[in-house]
Amino acid sequence: MNARFGFLLFDQFEDLDFVGAWEMLALWSQKFDGPNELFIINEQGGLVKSVKGLSIQSHTDFGSCPALDYLLVSGGQGTRTAVSNKQLISFIETQSKNCKQMLSVCTGAFLLQAAGLLTNKTATTHWASLDRLKAFTDVNVVEQRYVNDGDIWTSAGVSAGIDMVLAFIAATAGEVVAGDIQLLAEYYPQLRIYSNSKNYLPAYVANR
Amino acid sequence: MNARFGFLLFDQFEDLDFVGAWEMLALWSQKFDGPNELFIINEQGGLVKSVKGLSIQSHTDFGSCPALDYLLVSGGQGTRTAVSNKQLISFIETQSKNCKQMLSVCTGAFLLQAAGLLTNKTATTHWASLDRLKAFTDVNVVEQRYVNDGDIWTSAGVSAGIDMVLAFIAATAGEVVAGDIQLLAEYYPQLRIYSNSKNYLPAYVANR
Repeated sequence: MNARFGFLLFDQFEDLDFVGAWEMLALWSQKFDGPNELFIINEQGGLVKSVKGLSIQSHTDFGSCPALDYLLVSGGQGTRTAVSNKQLISFIETQSKNCKQMLSVCTGAFLLQAAGLLTNKTATTHWASLDRLKAFTDVNVVEQRYVNDGDIWTSAGVSAGIDMVLAFIAATAGEVVAGDIQLLAEYYPQLRIYSNSKNYLPAYVANR
Repeated sequence: MNARFGFLLFDQFEDLDFVGAWEMLALWSQKFDGPNELFIINEQGGLVKSVKGLSIQSHTDFGSCPALDYLLVSGGQGTRTAVSNKQLISFIETQSKNCKQMLSVCTGAFLLQAAGLLTNKTATTHWASLDRLKAFTDVNVVEQRYVNDGDIWTSAGVSAGIDMVLAFIAATAGEVVAGDIQLLAEYYPQLRIYSNSKNYLPAYVANR
């Protein structure tokens, strides 16, 4: 399909937030007529560094990035400073006017919020940041694996971007395309839940 | 823990093969006393390019890489040529003599095989490559999410590296450490299986 899909990165993005979503999107693009142009975007272009120490080459910068049809915003520790980056928030806001859908993974939701996109929307984020998001009283915060509300998709933490993008593809291109991508990525996770020292489980798991 | 964990990349590695495993390992390293030195390794060093178009900066090359305690080999389209790369196979073979455990994701198993490490071992790979692996009659090929046989860990395709590494961490550092990493990465995937056009499901899913 003739469409531009952007991935917004910034210093200290969370590695799997981005690459989980990227893998599903790129499989769609390369094998099943998904968006034909994918852009990894960074404010200044060049290499962008993750929380865990990956350095990834971006494709374009804020000045050169064309108008997008879809924009996915990663989360990570870097969102704590990115929310105060006026150029970055303004980039999201400007792109949203052209985009059919906007997506965030993990704490990327805080960047959509800062761009004014979560007002009167139902949204989610990483379990440990739900209370911070609830401080914005015009956002209806829920603890779900992912949420779609109109033109906004938000997901829970890190790995949840994979589930969100598969659901987004199913909604956009049909269930069988999502299923073919799930099969190629062999995304049939084991069901094992290891017990953790916090004795915490997201509500969407506890209620299964 | 005082240990060196290496990730072997090569031209046309599969993006999520690497980053899924990387995220879990790096969480262990940064937050829960996992291996204190992580190395992204590429034959010549520099940027290494994935199947889906990521360019990732490696940390070291074959000449400079120190002796490792653990080595994880990614899969991807590039394995088709990498199996014939004598320097690469010899690197795996040499490192295996020092390593406590060797791991592969997806078609990375073919590189372990070429280095002679799967002889009389039980192993797995991406569902679409199981028959190719069975051609090596001294390998006991099974269709499982992941397999541990002695000092060798192999996983099914792409996303299965996440499950394998969590199980590897549980075996090495205990179940609660694996659980704490699972919680931080919020790795509680939805259970949804989309139907695919091939009407195929891996045996480990079909038998659930």
